Amino acid sequence: MAFNSTSTVSSGFSSRPRVVVVGGGFAGLEVVRGLSRVPVDVLLIDKSNHHLFQPLLYQVATAVLTPAEIASPIRQLVKEDRRVQVMLGEVTGVDPAGRTLTVVTDTVTQATQRVAFDYLVLAVGMQNFYFGHADWRAEAPGLKTLKDATHLRAKILRAFETAESESDPDRQRELLTFVVVGGGPTGCEMAGAIAEMARTTLPREFRRIDSRTTRIFLVEAAPRLLLAFSEGLSARARTALEKMGVDVLLGQPVQHIDSHGIVVGDVRFPSSTVIWAAGVKAVPAGDWLGVPVDRQGRVVVNPDCRVPGFSYIFAAGDVMHLELKGRPLPGVAQVALQQGRYIGRALGAQVMGKPPLPPFHYQDRGNMAAIGRNFAVMESGPFQLSGRLAFWAWAIIHIFFLVNLHNRILVFLRWTWAYFTNQRMARLIVDPQEH
Amino acid sequence: MAFNSTSTVSSGFSSRPRVVVVGGGFAGLEVVRGLSRVPVDVLLIDKSNHHLFQPLLYQVATAVLTPAEIASPIRQLVKEDRRVQVMLGEVTGVDPAGRTLTVVTDTVTQATQRVAFDYLVLAVGMQNFYFGHADWRAEAPGLKTLKDATHLRAKILRAFETAESESDPDRQRELLTFVVVGGGPTGCEMAGAIAEMARTTLPREFRRIDSRTTRIFLVEAAPRLLLAFSEGLSARARTALEKMGVDVLLGQPVQHIDSHGIVVGDVRFPSSTVIWAAGVKAVPAGDWLGVPVDRQGRVVVNPDCRVPGFSYIFAAGDVMHLELKGRPLPGVAQVALQQGRYIGRALGAQVMGKPPLPPFHYQDRGNMAAIGRNFAVMESGPFQLSGRLAFWAWAIIHIFFLVNLHNRILVFLRWTWAYFTNQRMARLIVDPQEH
Repeated sequence: MAFNSTSTVSSGFSSRPRVVVVGGGFAGLEVVRGLSRVPVDVLLIDKSNHHLFQPLLYQVATAVLTPAEIASPIRQLVKEDRRVQVMLGEVTGVDPAGRTLTVVTDTVTQATQRVAFDYLVLAVGMQNFYFGHADWRAEAPGLKTLKDATHLRAKILRAFETAESESDPDRQRELLTFVVVGGGPTGCEMAGAIAEMARTTLPREFRRIDSRTTRIFLVEAAPRLLLAFSEGLSARARTALEKMGVDVLLGQPVQHIDSHGIVVGDVRFPSSTVIWAAGVKAVPAGDWLGVPVDRQGRVVVNPDCRVPGFSYIFAAGDVMHLELKGRPLPGVAQVALQQGRYIGRALGAQVMGKPPLPPFHYQDRGNMAAIGRNFAVMESGPFQLSGRLAFWAWAIIHIFFLVNLHNRILVFLRWTWAYFTNQRMARLIVDPQEH
Repeated sequence: MAFNSTSTVSSGFSSRPRVVVVGGGFAGLEVVRGLSRVPVDVLLIDKSNHHLFQPLLYQVATAVLTPAEIASPIRQLVKEDRRVQVMLGEVTGVDPAGRTLTVVTDTVTQATQRVAFDYLVLAVGMQNFYFGHADWRAEAPGLKTLKDATHLRAKILRAFETAESESDPDRQRELLTFVVVGGGPTGCEMAGAIAEMARTTLPREFRRIDSRTTRIFLVEAAPRLLLAFSEGLSARARTALEKMGVDVLLGQPVQHIDSHGIVVGDVRFPSSTVIWAAGVKAVPAGDWLGVPVDRQGRVVVNPDCRVPGFSYIFAAGDVMHLELKGRPLPGVAQVALQQGRYIGRALGAQVMGKPPLPPFHYQDRGNMAAIGRNFAVMESGPFQLSGRLAFWAWAIIHIFFLVNLHNRILVFLRWTWAYFTNQRMARLIVDPQEH
């Protein structure tokens, strides 16, 4: 991997300071927006060409929405500001003292470029993590990208199809058993969505299997679901899932996963579809910088979101670790949005020679998770809500947070259609066959 | 590959004759619909879980529409009729005398099943064909399936992205050169759509390249484009493409394709994106049956659409060859639809002991192709039309032929949005990286 000697992206530009933002998620986009009135040039680097609305990824995996409806081309989002450049590429290293990054920009030739910066914001997010069991990755796909989602969608739909043709009852049972590992919001939402598909969308479409007999297990090592919520809501979510036919297994760690099942505690569950919603770890930005990280690999930042030792490098969103009031900030969209906004302002003050901002303050607006079609849990401070009303609030808020009007209209239409017909119109198996 | 001794799908059913239809395209679905009042059991087998509206596949490849908008789950389309079963599987052989098929139904275990039939309809369509140059397949992807379309979409979008970061002007020029091989409707539509994307959607989004300098070559070995149309319309289509900035190369065969370009006649065109819209051949149904095929591998059928020698086996749509008035029927949706309807009726008469139908008669309603956003050509008998009005007619007719209301609404919305904003909202690179 040779460094490209022409540092092309820094040439031919103004004498304004250059801010490089790595990652076009919630945090990165907010930083770019926040810099619109600051005299800097901005380069936004992402390994995808789209901003992804991760909270609805599980709806792509369960065939309600299509990939394009929860994604927006990054270039389009920032095209109005001529000082903003976008680069599709994967960052593989940072020289923090020399203020350069290494980026792979041509996937065919694997050509790399060295990119110079005056200020750097790392907002590169998380990736799936299997707690040292790298061999589980192939058996239990996770859900972090659109490719993950369409892969899972194909795997889930194919299990029903194969079961319909299968004559061996044991194999058929294995195909009609789904295990979701991880009882956080994504795990609860996936388990609920699979249950709903099996019980409302599919029954009339198969002749030999009864999709209502599908078994869905939700496995969580902690003693309750949705640890970020109060115990009361967590219990209500569990009851809602159980009413939908999901078996909830708590307090038991996963021991083993292979292509025909999973061992939880001492019990083996034969299943051809195990879904991983349990562990994530940070993209290794800490290694790039050579700075301390927490157990999940997140960069520990100062209260002003700067990386210790570097006044010109920030980390934001899921990839950073910051404790406020003795608790680390959670890896949720709200933290990323607020931090992105803060860093935009902090950078503006720094560039324009104004006094530094007070430390980052997080305003927790609350949590929500949707389980099936008419049930959600939400809480905000002392306020708690669960059930149908919470579901409608969840739906409205999620449509509001989609980044463009076009997708808001399409998601609204798809949801309305799905709600009244029980149909899931995005039921496509387009993945390459798995073996 | 062991035969599964339990012929599961024939067990537990009525004593009605069983019709097996292979292929859920236009022809296959029409056969199934036509049998709704005939006392038979129906098994519809397809290797995809969705019916695909192929005429709009190029719009997925060029990021206007998303896959789910031109596809419908086959099970959902036929779910109301309880006598119809659906099987996801790939047919690998037919025993025409023993009246059984071999189908791979489990992609993990590669398990096969033997499926019995009383009547068989083969409507399995075409696949990409590289005229004996199998090595061109990887360099010049074709456009027959949704997977092809999303792969091409990623390849086209990635070329612009890589060009933006590239400092070598030769490699940049190669990345901004697109070659479409094949001057039929798909080739013309692809070339026009790429030109439009480069000239209207992308210019404001890149900073280092000018996407309007993109070169697009359309290569056709015959002396004119759109051979199925009159010479006048063919010339008008060529003029329209040239006005959009497409270079049309006629009468020159492709000599060579590699990952950095194509040789047409004696000239090498450096290009990192060559698209194959030139050759197709039939899925090898003729080999399965051991009956004569034409040059493209299509099964030569009798005037009643039956396969010679087998009164109970039909072939329909793109996979069959039938000459009417001295000319073979073209491989278009209309032929498939009309033949599917005819075979449904012919089978009904046969099963119910009625006199056989007169030979299949094809009513040619005409041809159309859209080139860019405001130009189409269409002809029907002596009637010819080109330009903006033809474009609107094309759009209305294509929305009408989508198989469900949900997709009609979504396609209408996407088209309206794209028409007035020039945006292409489905611009996702989600393919696995190519190398």
